[in-house]
Amino acid sequence: MTVSDYKAPVRDMKFVLNEVFNVEQLLASMPGTAEVNAELINSVLEEAGKVAEGLLAPLNRQGDEIGCQFDGGKVTTPGGFKDAYRTFAEGGWIGLAGDPQYGGQGMPKTLAVCFEEMIMAANSSLALYAVLSAGASLAISRHASDDLKQAYLPKLYDGSWSATMCLTEPHAGTDLGMIKTRAVPQSDGSYKVSGTKIFITGGEHDLSENIIHLVLAKLPDAPAGPRGISLFLVPKFLPDGDGNVGDSNGVSCGSIEHKMGLKGSATCVMNFDDATGYLVGEINKGLACMFTMMNYERLTIGLQGLGLGDASYQTAAAYARERIQGRSPAGPAQPDKAADSLLVHPDVRRMLLNMRANTEAGRALAAYVGNQLDIVYFHPDEERQARAAKLVALLTPITKAAFTDRGFEACVLGQQVLGGHGYVREWGQEQHVRDARIAQIYEGTNGIQALDLMGRKVVFDREGMLEEMLDEMRQFIDQEKDGRVAAFVAALDNALDCLVRTTDLIRQANTENPHEVGAASVPYLDLMTLILYCYMWARMVKVAEDALAAGTEDSDFYRAKIQVGCYFLDRIMPRYKSLAEEISAGSDVVMALDEALF
Amino acid sequence: MTVSDYKAPVRDMKFVLNEVFNVEQLLASMPGTAEVNAELINSVLEEAGKVAEGLLAPLNRQGDEIGCQFDGGKVTTPGGFKDAYRTFAEGGWIGLAGDPQYGGQGMPKTLAVCFEEMIMAANSSLALYAVLSAGASLAISRHASDDLKQAYLPKLYDGSWSATMCLTEPHAGTDLGMIKTRAVPQSDGSYKVSGTKIFITGGEHDLSENIIHLVLAKLPDAPAGPRGISLFLVPKFLPDGDGNVGDSNGVSCGSIEHKMGLKGSATCVMNFDDATGYLVGEINKGLACMFTMMNYERLTIGLQGLGLGDASYQTAAAYARERIQGRSPAGPAQPDKAADSLLVHPDVRRMLLNMRANTEAGRALAAYVGNQLDIVYFHPDEERQARAAKLVALLTPITKAAFTDRGFEACVLGQQVLGGHGYVREWGQEQHVRDARIAQIYEGTNGIQALDLMGRKVVFDREGMLEEMLDEMRQFIDQEKDGRVAAFVAALDNALDCLVRTTDLIRQANTENPHEVGAASVPYLDLMTLILYCYMWARMVKVAEDALAAGTEDSDFYRAKIQVGCYFLDRIMPRYKSLAEEISAGSDVVMALDEALF
Repeated sequence: MTVSDYKAPVRDMKFVLNEVFNVEQLLASMPGTAEVNAELINSVLEEAGKVAEGLLAPLNRQGDEIGCQFDGGKVTTPGGFKDAYRTFAEGGWIGLAGDPQYGGQGMPKTLAVCFEEMIMAANSSLALYAVLSAGASLAISRHASDDLKQAYLPKLYDGSWSATMCLTEPHAGTDLGMIKTRAVPQSDGSYKVSGTKIFITGGEHDLSENIIHLVLAKLPDAPAGPRGISLFLVPKFLPDGDGNVGDSNGVSCGSIEHKMGLKGSATCVMNFDDATGYLVGEINKGLACMFTMMNYERLTIGLQGLGLGDASYQTAAAYARERIQGRSPAGPAQPDKAADSLLVHPDVRRMLLNMRANTEAGRALAAYVGNQLDIVYFHPDEERQARAAKLVALLTPITKAAFTDRGFEACVLGQQVLGGHGYVREWGQEQHVRDARIAQIYEGTNGIQALDLMGRKVVFDREGMLEEMLDEMRQFIDQEKDGRVAAFVAALDNALDCLVRTTDLIRQANTENPHEVGAASVPYLDLMTLILYCYMWARMVKVAEDALAAGTEDSDFYRAKIQVGCYFLDRIMPRYKSLAEEISAGSDVVMALDEALF
Repeated sequence: MTVSDYKAPVRDMKFVLNEVFNVEQLLASMPGTAEVNAELINSVLEEAGKVAEGLLAPLNRQGDEIGCQFDGGKVTTPGGFKDAYRTFAEGGWIGLAGDPQYGGQGMPKTLAVCFEEMIMAANSSLALYAVLSAGASLAISRHASDDLKQAYLPKLYDGSWSATMCLTEPHAGTDLGMIKTRAVPQSDGSYKVSGTKIFITGGEHDLSENIIHLVLAKLPDAPAGPRGISLFLVPKFLPDGDGNVGDSNGVSCGSIEHKMGLKGSATCVMNFDDATGYLVGEINKGLACMFTMMNYERLTIGLQGLGLGDASYQTAAAYARERIQGRSPAGPAQPDKAADSLLVHPDVRRMLLNMRANTEAGRALAAYVGNQLDIVYFHPDEERQARAAKLVALLTPITKAAFTDRGFEACVLGQQVLGGHGYVREWGQEQHVRDARIAQIYEGTNGIQALDLMGRKVVFDREGMLEEMLDEMRQFIDQEKDGRVAAFVAALDNALDCLVRTTDLIRQANTENPHEVGAASVPYLDLMTLILYCYMWARMVKVAEDALAAGTEDSDFYRAKIQVGCYFLDRIMPRYKSLAEEISAGSDVVMALDEALF
């Protein structure tokens, strides 16, 4: 077994898409996706799996060991990345969910979600270059002029050009209102953009012939704060008359960061010096346009955490099966061998089951959100669109933070299963930990996700986002309370009551004390995650129970699904009560200590 | 601020030693430590702090960046390590708690515990070489012959020689019964030792003129399993007639590991090829002798987690004070600046308070265990010795696992506070995460510590170890239930009831199902940790409340202590209930999944 033994979870994704969510039926009902039937879904998943396993995974370790090199303003990616990226792009994968009018494949987001999990699991560093292009393309296709779309989208979809998002500056990360990058209008309608951006993933590299930067900047007369931010498209090379790479623009890479992980991904300091840029969307509305990309990337980064947790699980499970050490507490299980496999030890199973219970619930939730995104984008019924948009708004911060928190936790557990062998480079488990760690930080720290959830999406929300989700779960409870998953339904019912009480408490408390939302936000996101995962497990276990009751040739698969689900219910779900108690302690105890005494 | 800005927590340690535990009084009552008064304690803490801050901390980052180099069997430590180690040794720090008969300083363990936390926080890689020598010296002084003591202890205490512990082999980590290293008796009473050991910290390096290996091996006719293991002292160079470095022995370093962190510490593959060794302790009783060292190192490794968590806290708190980003939810706190400090954000405080609440409780518990170790070693009253020995046995696995789990968690939080700046090398926070991670794995994984606690120390214990601890806490509850810390006492009282119920449940269940202990062990250790930390906080807050009531010039210190303690009580302690519920779910759900389906 080597570290490139990643196996794309195609069977599990088919289960989620076809059996749990019956995606085919939904897609058939929408004009833009009507041709995406189960056969096509399965075939895309299988092909995607081959790309992840065969093309990306084998380069993951050398990507970490060699890393990106910076010399004289140029960035060289690790050996093999360039060829692999070319093959990947030629397969049409960058434009998988792209607009067909400009050369995209027009596949539903639900499928893209599965694909992104696979490529992130196989090689996050290499995958990042691709998902940034996909995300930037989305922002361009939604907000840019037709001319810009025509000039840039085809080349982004086909991978000959790539893209970045340029937000952070040295003094302005979370607080983008403080950015100093300036954009000065020119007589021809373009802008001259000047400033320094940091932590720019893929800001410079050798994978594509051009790099298209989406840059947040302020016009000279812009209002202070976030309401004065505009979005600009700034290419590394300006297109020539034929739309090909022309003159170089005032964009340069000052250096790359030395990071904990993700070493195959170039994290750049980018200098813009009177660089020609083109406005995307309206003046001073740049943050909203950028959020089109950021929300896309937030789910994608969630999938990085999810995928890496799964990759770590696969190695840990294989190691635990093969490694013999100690004896079962019930007496020798393999008396002919010098010791039993690690899987006889309950605590090793605890670690593996924790990883798997969270990963599989997360995978289902990712597909669920993908479904809602497809409804928003493709559904002809405005009411269904509006409902789906509310769910997407509510769930986006949860998927980003929960998948990456649980994913990092999974990587740490997967390292622990291997003992000392997990701490050395050889098995690849320590790389997963290092690579997964950034996902809790970038694209808005998980603390910011939790604030977004608890603040904008719950306490200050007037659209009923949370209520939409609660209604759906309550319907499920009503339908299934006497059925095969009654135990899950009972736990979910109690947890929903607890969530509602806790939510009301904070909504009320925050009217008198503005610190309540921030003090509650992270445990509140964890509480909500447990509830959503419980709901996902209830739905998955129901399908599995039904399949077993109906008789199936694949009974191992369904029985495992039920057993992992029961593990979640009995050993992970109870945590929600403590989270609610922690939240109800309020903010005073958080705010009491004087700043000088930290 | 730079990464070498570590400040040894001398004030906090004085508080714990002098005010919470009144260590002076205990030490005065024991012949071996009678001269260690508060003045000496304070002076040792202050000098130790200077060593950690001025000598070790400045080398921490370059130790990571340069790492150990291996070439032709030789290991070169990072620049500066050799000189620093010499200065450190000349200060007498390696023999701080060593036997005065052979050149040790004879200081109590309580002080050594504080010292080890500091040096681990400042530079774990460099500190490890020293603490291994100290631990090996302890095993030698307890179990070796007088000749061996005379020949080796003085040179280990003065640092001219160093030591290792050689347990793990490629196929035998946790399961030491499977080791293959052989020791063949020679006519002169020595042994010829042959075999391969892996993951040997400090197995080869350039810091000392000789390296003394304590090696587990089996005699040709030894019984199978752990009862056939003996312990040997195997020097790299055999002493000559004058006791100085003589002929080289059959010991060589085959390679060093490429690890996630702790890169300044050489982790070696050691080959023993008919190497001359000397028996330590009795034949086939080697594991018990080695456990003298391992128990010592377990507490020390716990202190690595504790110290690194504190180091990470210090950087995170300083960053949070200085970095301005966003506005207080209550409105601008520093309206004259472009933004407020990170400390206005409740969630940033949550992270910092979590780190600090766990670190300070752990520091108190470390001193408590140090106290018990001193009673075991120095106290003339056998009954008190026996009681202390039971507490040490119970608490050793808890300190190792809890301090390193909470320490790693603290390092991850301390990285999170810095956002993207925590993921790059510059601030040192990512190194803390990588360095702390190993502490959960080596010296017996934390899963093994939990099994030791729940199995040998609780369920199968016939000496009443747990009951000894419970009695002490119940006495405290009785004394303080109407006093200034009534809220802590009430929580502690409820949690003790929960612990007793949970313990009875597992003791009972395990009689019928041998998987119950293993399935419960890790959450049980976490549950116990919360209770012990609550007890420590109750004691610290009581002292702080009394100091404030009596009037003090240092009221900021005591108020902060109370506020951090209240944070622990309200926002961390509630977790115990969920842990008890998780445990009570039992082992069936852990054991259900078929091995082939992992």
